[in-house]
Amino acid sequence: VLDATLELLAEGGHPALSFEAIAQRAGVNRTTLYRRWGTREAVMLDALLEQGRERVPIPDTGSLHGDLVAYGEAIAKSLVTPETEALVRAVVSSRDAPLADASRRFWRTRLELAREMVEHAIARREVPPDTDADALLEALLGGIYFRLLMSREEIDGDFVRRLADLLSAPPARLKGRRRAAS
Amino acid sequence: VLDATLELLAEGGHPALSFEAIAQRAGVNRTTLYRRWGTREAVMLDALLEQGRERVPIPDTGSLHGDLVAYGEAIAKSLVTPETEALVRAVVSSRDAPLADASRRFWRTRLELAREMVEHAIARREVPPDTDADALLEALLGGIYFRLLMSREEIDGDFVRRLADLLSAPPARLKGRRRAAS
Repeated sequence: VLDATLELLAEGGHPALSFEAIAQRAGVNRTTLYRRWGTREAVMLDALLEQGRERVPIPDTGSLHGDLVAYGEAIAKSLVTPETEALVRAVVSSRDAPLADASRRFWRTRLELAREMVEHAIARREVPPDTDADALLEALLGGIYFRLLMSREEIDGDFVRRLADLLSAPPARLKGRRRAAS
Repeated sequence: VLDATLELLAEGGHPALSFEAIAQRAGVNRTTLYRRWGTREAVMLDALLEQGRERVPIPDTGSLHGDLVAYGEAIAKSLVTPETEALVRAVVSSRDAPLADASRRFWRTRLELAREMVEHAIARREVPPDTDADALLEALLGGIYFRLLMSREEIDGDFVRRLADLLSAPPARLKGRRRAAS
């Protein structure tokens, strides 16, 4: 089912995807899909999650700042495609319970994978061992999605870098870096 | 028009609000409203912004951490009402241009007001003078809205405090505070 969903997404995108098309391609009963997922967006999230496990690389640039910039820019880049934006807006607008569950699964897995960047920074003694990796990643992702969904401001490289500055370095070190750069 | 919108919102909430009802209450032509705002959500955002200018207090607890916790908790609390949540989901799901403009105005003004918390912290020499107030506030608000809209995780006081920990203090100080608390 998930493979069929990914194939159909690649072929026609989010608007073309229906339970009927997925059921036909996967050779399963439409009712089975409906019972398991409830909405087509929930199937899509699970399919994208499965794909992401294999394909979304977690950056390893040698510094937390570099990793956060690379990761944030990859997310920002994925959001400018009309298809992803349409999927995101469809998912966030819904209060459907199976879709909320699929969102929760999706982000729990994505955050767990992304935590590696903070773990590497801890191993390099770049940040203290008790650094709150989840809060840090939710603030980074949150800042990006806040502009997409709430404030409708541009998500450019400069904004991602400013979030990474803030989240990867204490103010004192930040100050030094800015002076060195100017 | 904005007063009429606020009155109607207070009486019946978001679902009950129509251009027709606003036009009638405000004594203006429906077409005028439509031409100026395009969607009922855009009128609501402008009305809430006008109200917020007077009523949403920016906390002044004496520390940046305390201010961020108080501010974040007030936002989180406002989002648990079904009315606000319905309005947020309706706004974020739309690609309507006048609504996007209203969202941009709304958040530019809200962020400008909230910047005061960081300015106070700079004046107290709690954080360096070049602290990126906008990135900090977008990360705080973003983290909260990320849970509401994307990851569907609970937005409790603990989560708000963790974001405030991360954004108000360099890791070294954080460590000290956590040890003292445990």
